[in-house]
Amino acid sequence: MSLWLRFLDWFTRTFGNRRRSVPREPLSIRPIAVVHNAVKTPRMDGWAQVRSDILVRDDLTSALDGIEEYSHIIVVFAFDRVPESELRARVRPGGDARIPEQGVLATRSQLRPSPLGVSVVRLLKRRQNVLRVEGLDAIDGTPVLDIKPYFPNYDAVPDAGVPEWARTLATNR
Amino acid sequence: MSLWLRFLDWFTRTFGNRRRSVPREPLSIRPIAVVHNAVKTPRMDGWAQVRSDILVRDDLTSALDGIEEYSHIIVVFAFDRVPESELRARVRPGGDARIPEQGVLATRSQLRPSPLGVSVVRLLKRRQNVLRVEGLDAIDGTPVLDIKPYFPNYDAVPDAGVPEWARTLATNR
Repeated sequence: MSLWLRFLDWFTRTFGNRRRSVPREPLSIRPIAVVHNAVKTPRMDGWAQVRSDILVRDDLTSALDGIEEYSHIIVVFAFDRVPESELRARVRPGGDARIPEQGVLATRSQLRPSPLGVSVVRLLKRRQNVLRVEGLDAIDGTPVLDIKPYFPNYDAVPDAGVPEWARTLATNR
Repeated sequence: MSLWLRFLDWFTRTFGNRRRSVPREPLSIRPIAVVHNAVKTPRMDGWAQVRSDILVRDDLTSALDGIEEYSHIIVVFAFDRVPESELRARVRPGGDARIPEQGVLATRSQLRPSPLGVSVVRLLKRRQNVLRVEGLDAIDGTPVLDIKPYFPNYDAVPDAGVPEWARTLATNR
C-alpha cells in the first residue's frame, strides 16, 4: 500500500465519523438447526470420528440448495450448556499445567464471553434438510446458528503461525 | 470405523434420548468488540488490503492475553445493517448471471437467516484491547461477537472441494 493510502487509512480510522464504542445492545439470534449425535456429555477430544446429523429448520430446506457440492462446511454453534458463572477471563488449555495460562479469547475454550463455537467439518451427505457431517465437536442437542460453505482460498491458511506449545496439540479446545 | 460402532452410532442418533427439534428460543449475544476502519459502506470485494482496528471491551483486555502469538485469528461478526426484509432463501453469488442460483446457506452472502460473518484475518499487532488486523471484510462500526486464534491443523483444509464455478472466485461473498 502506498504511504498516502496508509495515511488516509489511518486518518479515517482515527477521525472518521463512526461508532467509536462497542455496541451495548445484545444481538438476538434464532437457531437454524440442531445437532444429533451419540455424544451426550461434553468431552475434551475424540471428535474426529464422530458423525452427526445437523437437522435444519424445515423452512430453510431450500436455503441449503447447492451445499452438497462442497466437501467441507463451517458450522457456527452455541455452547448452550455452560453456566454463566463458569465463564472466565483466563484458562489453561487442556488443563495442562505445562502450558502457560492464556486469555480465554486466545483459546478455543467454551468458557468464553460469547458462547460461540466455529468448526470446520467434512460434509458426508445432504438429504433434504439433514446434513450428515464428520468431526463436529458439539454434543447432541447443540443449537446451530449458521452453516457456511468452506472456501479454501478464503478460509485455509495452512502456514498460519501458532505458539510453540500449541504446535503439539491438535486443538486447544 | 467398525460396522458395530457405526451401527451403535446410527442407533443412538436415531433412537437416543435427545432434543429432536430445533430450539425455538433465540440466543442473546452481547458484542465483545467493534470494528474501526475506513470502509463506510458495504461492498463486494477489495477487502484484502483493508486494515482494521478491532476495539475490544475494556473488561475483556486480559481475556486477549496470548493472542499476539498467533499470526491469524477468526473474527465472528454481525451483519447488522441488513434489513430483515432483504433476507432470502436463494441468491446468485456475486450477482453473476453465469453462476447458478444457490441456497443462501450454500453461500457466504450476508442475506442469510442468522446475520453472522466468519472471517480469517491476519493479526498485525495487539496493543492492549486493540487488535490491528488485515483483510477483515466488515465495514466500520460492525459489532464483533467473538475472536478466536486460528489453528491450521484444526481450521485449514487446503484441498477442500468446491463446485467448478466457485474455483474462479476468491470468495462468493
